[in-house]
Amino acid sequence: MITVSVFGWVPDFARGLVRDLRVRWALEEVGLAYEEQVIDARDKQSDAYLAYRRDLQPFGQVPAYREGDLTLFESGGIVHHIAQKSPQLMPQDPAAAARVTSWMFCALNSVEPPIQELTAMDLFHVGESWAKGRRDLAEKQVRGRLDGVAERLGDADYLEGVFSAADILMVSVLRILRHTDILDGYSSLTAYKERCEGRPAFAKALSDQLATFDRSPSA
Amino acid sequence: MITVSVFGWVPDFARGLVRDLRVRWALEEVGLAYEEQVIDARDKQSDAYLAYRRDLQPFGQVPAYREGDLTLFESGGIVHHIAQKSPQLMPQDPAAAARVTSWMFCALNSVEPPIQELTAMDLFHVGESWAKGRRDLAEKQVRGRLDGVAERLGDADYLEGVFSAADILMVSVLRILRHTDILDGYSSLTAYKERCEGRPAFAKALSDQLATFDRSPSA
Repeated sequence: MITVSVFGWVPDFARGLVRDLRVRWALEEVGLAYEEQVIDARDKQSDAYLAYRRDLQPFGQVPAYREGDLTLFESGGIVHHIAQKSPQLMPQDPAAAARVTSWMFCALNSVEPPIQELTAMDLFHVGESWAKGRRDLAEKQVRGRLDGVAERLGDADYLEGVFSAADILMVSVLRILRHTDILDGYSSLTAYKERCEGRPAFAKALSDQLATFDRSPSA
Repeated sequence: MITVSVFGWVPDFARGLVRDLRVRWALEEVGLAYEEQVIDARDKQSDAYLAYRRDLQPFGQVPAYREGDLTLFESGGIVHHIAQKSPQLMPQDPAAAARVTSWMFCALNSVEPPIQELTAMDLFHVGESWAKGRRDLAEKQVRGRLDGVAERLGDADYLEGVFSAADILMVSVLRILRHTDILDGYSSLTAYKERCEGRPAFAKALSDQLATFDRSPSA
């Protein structure tokens, strides 16, 4: 039995972006059922939240993942673990698998950090004077990464020929830009994102994340 | 034959930190020889640099990696690929391998981004007004990550019992803080970093990176 930790409540701007979505999406792609462990992070000193940090997720974030005796706590690592269960997400050829894994690191180490920095500025620090000074540079850094990904993608449908775990992570990262119009300038990346979002497994994962928010007490 | 791209010149503050070090270190640990492809990134419009971006590294950074027909361009992915060649860097037990891989993503997706943000502020943007306003928050974010890693490490020697590729990436990330005294507040992380830096493979990798800078024309 697989258990994935998810937040019961997040601010509106984070709905549909929280990182358990990546794990849900991967599990849907390979057809593995899972249970949710709903975490309430609003009271950072509650016994339940402190126990969650101690036992499962040292940064107090989601997702954490349990599968029998195995526990994992980093979304990239969890998606990689799930991907290795199925050639639908990870090619069996070792060279192709290395390229997919490299794209997974690319999404999370080269593309996501500047996107997260820009997004934090726009959503959490918008009124602060430093954010105004930093934003042009941050947007330039984001565009530099998007230029590189778009050039590599070219007119292909997916990063490595066929859909893989790399696309789950890259699209999850590109989606964080939804509060901006930056992606509009990249028609191939927009089409790529929409192609991946059009997959039934993505739709189910997204709908399940949103349903949990709707079901959880809001105050 | 393995080839790793490295820079021939970087500013002094980056010497000993450039990301090819991670790949050199992994190769030394498993005893694989490699050749350097020295990249000059100072003239961003040179034919050689533009060809490097197009063919090997879409962001124009190092390292890129070639091994026969396989090319990879992201340090995390390259280290993961090398690690899979040897149980010295990646356990053969699948659950242990999943935990090591998760720590690799943790180092590069959770720990390195705030450290890089802080470092960019201190080294590239120190005189800019926004950096002053942003720095307290950035340092707080770094400490939040270090708290989590230190708690998980506890009094163990390595992240997953024995030395692995996870330690290569985590220590490479912690080393970026060398211009600050932040790590001094974390005695277990300092000891952990020094334990890993004490390995002969690390010393050889570092010395080889520095030797390349010393050998390359400086202007």
